[in-house]
Amino acid sequence: MAKASSKQITPKSEDFDRWYVDVIRRAELADYTPVAGCMVIRPYGFALWENTQRALDDMIKRTGHQNMQFPLFIPESLLVKEAEHVEGFAPEVAWVTQGGSEQLHERLAVRPTSETIICELYRKWIHSWRDLPVLINQWANVVRWEKRTRLFLRTTEFWWQEGHTFHETWEQARDEVDTMLGCYRELAEEWLAMPVIAGRKTASEKFAGAEYTLSIEAMMSDGWALQTGTSHHLGQNFTRAYDISYSGRDNTLLFPFQTSWGLSTRIIGGVIMAHGDDAGLILPPRVAPVQVIVVPIAQSGDAGGPVEEAAVRLEREAPSGVRLRVDRRDGIRPGEKYADWELRGVPLRVVVGARDLAEGRVTVVRRVDGEQQQLPLEGVAARLPGMLDEAQAAIRARAQRLLDERSVEVTDLDGLRQAFEVQPVFASGPFCDSPECELAVKQAVHALTVRVLRADRRPDGAPCLGCGRPADHVALFARAY
Amino acid sequence: MAKASSKQITPKSEDFDRWYVDVIRRAELADYTPVAGCMVIRPYGFALWENTQRALDDMIKRTGHQNMQFPLFIPESLLVKEAEHVEGFAPEVAWVTQGGSEQLHERLAVRPTSETIICELYRKWIHSWRDLPVLINQWANVVRWEKRTRLFLRTTEFWWQEGHTFHETWEQARDEVDTMLGCYRELAEEWLAMPVIAGRKTASEKFAGAEYTLSIEAMMSDGWALQTGTSHHLGQNFTRAYDISYSGRDNTLLFPFQTSWGLSTRIIGGVIMAHGDDAGLILPPRVAPVQVIVVPIAQSGDAGGPVEEAAVRLEREAPSGVRLRVDRRDGIRPGEKYADWELRGVPLRVVVGARDLAEGRVTVVRRVDGEQQQLPLEGVAARLPGMLDEAQAAIRARAQRLLDERSVEVTDLDGLRQAFEVQPVFASGPFCDSPECELAVKQAVHALTVRVLRADRRPDGAPCLGCGRPADHVALFARAY
Repeated sequence: MAKASSKQITPKSEDFDRWYVDVIRRAELADYTPVAGCMVIRPYGFALWENTQRALDDMIKRTGHQNMQFPLFIPESLLVKEAEHVEGFAPEVAWVTQGGSEQLHERLAVRPTSETIICELYRKWIHSWRDLPVLINQWANVVRWEKRTRLFLRTTEFWWQEGHTFHETWEQARDEVDTMLGCYRELAEEWLAMPVIAGRKTASEKFAGAEYTLSIEAMMSDGWALQTGTSHHLGQNFTRAYDISYSGRDNTLLFPFQTSWGLSTRIIGGVIMAHGDDAGLILPPRVAPVQVIVVPIAQSGDAGGPVEEAAVRLEREAPSGVRLRVDRRDGIRPGEKYADWELRGVPLRVVVGARDLAEGRVTVVRRVDGEQQQLPLEGVAARLPGMLDEAQAAIRARAQRLLDERSVEVTDLDGLRQAFEVQPVFASGPFCDSPECELAVKQAVHALTVRVLRADRRPDGAPCLGCGRPADHVALFARAY
Repeated sequence: MAKASSKQITPKSEDFDRWYVDVIRRAELADYTPVAGCMVIRPYGFALWENTQRALDDMIKRTGHQNMQFPLFIPESLLVKEAEHVEGFAPEVAWVTQGGSEQLHERLAVRPTSETIICELYRKWIHSWRDLPVLINQWANVVRWEKRTRLFLRTTEFWWQEGHTFHETWEQARDEVDTMLGCYRELAEEWLAMPVIAGRKTASEKFAGAEYTLSIEAMMSDGWALQTGTSHHLGQNFTRAYDISYSGRDNTLLFPFQTSWGLSTRIIGGVIMAHGDDAGLILPPRVAPVQVIVVPIAQSGDAGGPVEEAAVRLEREAPSGVRLRVDRRDGIRPGEKYADWELRGVPLRVVVGARDLAEGRVTVVRRVDGEQQQLPLEGVAARLPGMLDEAQAAIRARAQRLLDERSVEVTDLDGLRQAFEVQPVFASGPFCDSPECELAVKQAVHALTVRVLRADRRPDGAPCLGCGRPADHVALFARAY
């Protein structure tokens, strides 16, 4: 680990964007590369992603899905079969045109998403209603050619899972879309400590080729929104275009209904922006690569003394499953070590000093709020899981407070304008979901977007804040990454 | 699961190549795709790979390595810096030349392997001897343009892990190369039940850019060899070419020594070919997606009766960690179910029939040798882990017997020719490791190759089987996939 004092990061309050990049690079989560728009995920960042992956993969399997691996390349003739889909993705595709010394007859797209190749393959595999449902998932890299990139949030290559399912009925596909959005919500809230608002995207924001798209939106600590997972009902749009038909229970030929859903490394950007502070990252314990950092404050000539003994004891007594590490680096002052691990967002720091230890005690400091406790060394290791749970809850409660404080209700466009005058907020208001009113909202406040039509709210007769006509929805308006 | 009787596969003895493809497709491990040379790994095959991955990933982490993620693309100017490396890989590279609507100024290689981009990045990150060793790994897809493809064994895109390390001394790099080959051996032997022979590749077969390459070679059941993992000492070849220098302990500027090592989905092809028989796959329990298949033989109108009760009891009582499934499919005769799961290589089948059950018993059949046991239902679930261990050992012993039976010693080229007259074997003999003698060996027997200079044997003064001059090595000669 390179020494990386928090002094080197721009304060969050001074410049959020620079803070974001500083934290990622100094905490060694990720970095830019000489490959345009592509990032490298470094060990600390990748361990965070691995823990997130593991949690989500368990949910994906728990809900009956199986993992597969599909080809990276998609022949152009395959990509273009669903008109809306190709129109949406073609401008972002990286094309392979040469293989070895050979000029290819047909260009190969580096997958921007895999619906098309998956449909082509399942055309061979789905024959009868007995073959349904198909419930599969792939962890993969995808490529979308981006002009403006931002570590984790928008890169040319990114890593994700994409689930793909086929069903007999529209309603089964709807339930699947809901189930998987529920998993994403569980991941965001229970594991990443980010409260989210779920709902449906407007027509202009849905997945290219979908009937509708659901999404979860989290609030970053600057009040902006981040879309952290999407789940799409594809209807029969692709199954008709790719001619996937099966013989139904009554022996008629039918097209299955389809869904897809994805969550990517982008959510790591969310964890950083939702929880971090001027000192660096604040990681939720359930996904933190290091949950407890022990800093022994050894006096010179103290090797093998009581301080080291206590550190060894903590290592030995830490319940299995607790990711605890002892920082035994030489020649680095305790204060620097504290700053390093604060920058890296480690949830708990256990300081083992000679004076405390003489009284049988150690000091435990919680990253999220700096809360300090002096606790008996005896039994402290066994208490770590409980303290980590409390830290997890404290991080989530803090994020929930921010969301509550920065959420406002609006009833007209003037109210919407006023709501954003002081600071970015999550504004909710009655909305008719017409393209005209969506445009009016975007023009009312700079960079404002309709995030979702909220799943948890109904307008109760209030008129649309754009046109005053009856509103069917309560929409969430926010600026978004 | 599609019904897939073993009747549909070509007998192994009749045509090994067709048997191999039949097994993979009928057991739904993988399939060809409309994308030239690219395969799709289906859920059953992917679960097998996931179990293999998990085992190896644990070893990689246990030995101190951390996972990362590097970019898929490598700019051409970066790829070409190490002369031998680019010469080796350029003929196999897929090139991206267009991004969106834009023609790229510089072609991007889809990574055939990642040494070059990793060197470029670590040039920024390695400054001092304190930054060494660097011990990292990546799980990734790579692309090598192939003309002749074969499921799992040789496909344009494949999936692997590639480890990359940097060290202060040549000896440390040597130890790393040995350690990781040791992990590959452990994976092959302890998990995949394939005994292997380890050694060094000849100059003509080493990795492009390496000082030397170690490999493990397993015997397939047709007597051919499969290289199942390689570990390369890169010396300072890349670190000099990419100008990675650091200040050493004495403050002089030094180039680190480097290693890389990889193991891919190819090894799944090895598991299939090493163990399978005319009825299909034979999977080692430690990686089998389903370890125990329970087939209840229910009479009509028996729903909820003692047979189903016994099946439920087995599900409930199976120790955690045992991957047990009950085949409750309707309208499929028991014999067909047996054939389906034999095709899929499930290590143990538990048949629950009414007559046995009346005597409190079930029948357990072992896939590898068809051994049957009638056992009391009471307590049988608890015995499953032990029986799985025995099945694992039996599969390995069977592979070891084959290797022993088909291994021969040779002392001259005539002996080598005779050894291959009856059937393909693993021939070992004294060898001087000159390019001339390598050529002589290749010409002596059709398609013969020097697999490795064995790490476990010395020639004890015997002369080279090619030229009669002093031999430093015992080489392993075999035909190889």
